[in-house]
Amino acid sequence: MTVHGYTYGTSAVAKSPVLPADFEDMKKSALFGEEDVKYLRLSHDIVKDQVEQILDVWYGFVGANPHLLASFTGKADGKPLGDYLGGVRKRFGQWILDTARAEYDQRWLDYQHEIGLRHHRIKKNKTDGAPSTDLVPFRNLFALIFPVTFTLKPFLARKGHSAEEVERMHAAWVKSCLLQVTLWSYPYVKEGDF
Amino acid sequence: MTVHGYTYGTSAVAKSPVLPADFEDMKKSALFGEEDVKYLRLSHDIVKDQVEQILDVWYGFVGANPHLLASFTGKADGKPLGDYLGGVRKRFGQWILDTARAEYDQRWLDYQHEIGLRHHRIKKNKTDGAPSTDLVPFRNLFALIFPVTFTLKPFLARKGHSAEEVERMHAAWVKSCLLQVTLWSYPYVKEGDF
Ligand code: HEM
Ligand code: HEM
Repeated sequence: MTVHGYTYGTSAVAKSPVLPADFEDMKKSALFGEEDVKYLRLSHDIVKDQVEQILDVWYGFVGANPHLLASFTGKADGKPLGDYLGGVRKRFGQWILDTARAEYDQRWLDYQHEIGLRHHRIKKNKTDGAPSTDLVPFRNLFALIFPVTFTLKPFLARKGHSAEEVERMHAAWVKSCLLQVTLWSYPYVKEGDF
Repeated sequence: MTVHGYTYGTSAVAKSPVLPADFEDMKKSALFGEEDVKYLRLSHDIVKDQVEQILDVWYGFVGANPHLLASFTGKADGKPLGDYLGGVRKRFGQWILDTARAEYDQRWLDYQHEIGLRHHRIKKNKTDGAPSTDLVPFRNLFALIFPVTFTLKPFLARKGHSAEEVERMHAAWVKSCLLQVTLWSYPYVKEGDF
């Protein structure tokens, strides 16, 4: 199965402008360490056959909030674009697995930059040829980390792991999202301020 | 006791460029609601006589990480500036109480913008007349939310509240920090992209 526009690890993805050494420091700022890699990977097998149900919850949240759904609507008529929502959803499913695989190497770093560009006006809509709004506004990007990780927790708990393990997987997801959305912010931030 | 440079609610603070209606939407994105206000306020009386101990932990973390401490060092010689660290610490103490008071009105919104300017090159160092670096880099701002809220948890648990109450206070702090650091990011973000 190929997912349209999912270019992770291909030559279509440019190099991240974030230096690996700076990313190492960012991890330290978030208390992200080997334990988190371990717990993200533990989560991989738990989430891998629940991806569609997780996406149902997340898409339900976006759909229920007009100010979020707006980024998936037609620029001209403000109506939700089903094809666009559907295309992005497949890549969102890949992202769940990539986050849980936790191979945070150069290829991963590069694709994070690509995801940032796709939220930003530089590349939004391009992958799906969607006639949508120009930009996902910065102001909601980090806020969404809360519902995304909070609603993930019950799925993490569904395969019989201890409360302690679920807690640690959840924490690792929160840290990973903080780091990722920071990387995605690069195109939004003024030159020299990142 | 007056805290040098703590200008919350005074005419020295400019109006936030973030519209109240957009802030309401940001709250929805973070699942921040009346319950969170309640639990933040519950945390107020718990943290109010532990502020110095909490700051010891947070300052310990910054001090132990050269890439963070860098923002508190002399621009010329790279040595930690004790007066600067000490001056900021007093306002940081106020911030703990203000976050827990959770009066997220226009005065609060305006002061969040001020805090953003003080991290950014526009106003960094001005309040304390510190001969320090020009900018707190964007890349560590959100990452720090994890250690700040994680290390707060034991303090929230120290006054006999149930695990459930501690969990909810912690979640409310995480949401509040996501919203606040987003507001602080305004000066870092390109015009029109916020
Ligand atoms: C925790 C925060 C967020 C996460 C984890 C997330 C995740 C993702 C992922 C994985 C993709 C697909 C990337 C790819 O093409 O491979 C994507 C695309 C997209 N997201 Fe987000 N997102 C977040 C915040 C937001 C917010 C707040 C909005 C606003 C509604 C939003 C709107 C979009 C849109 C419109 C696209 C399609 C971009 C395009 O045209 O290619 N996202 N997101
Ligand atoms: C969760 C993230 C953060 C929180 C909650 C936070 C909180 C605060 C607070 C409350 C103040 C005082 C504001 C005032 O003047 O009233 C402050 C100032 C400051 N913070 Fe942060 N901060 C965060 C991230 C960072 C990071 C990552 C750094 C980098 C080391 C940093 C460096 C500074 C500096 C240098 C000042 C003094 C700015 C000035 O010159 O006025 N902060 N911070």
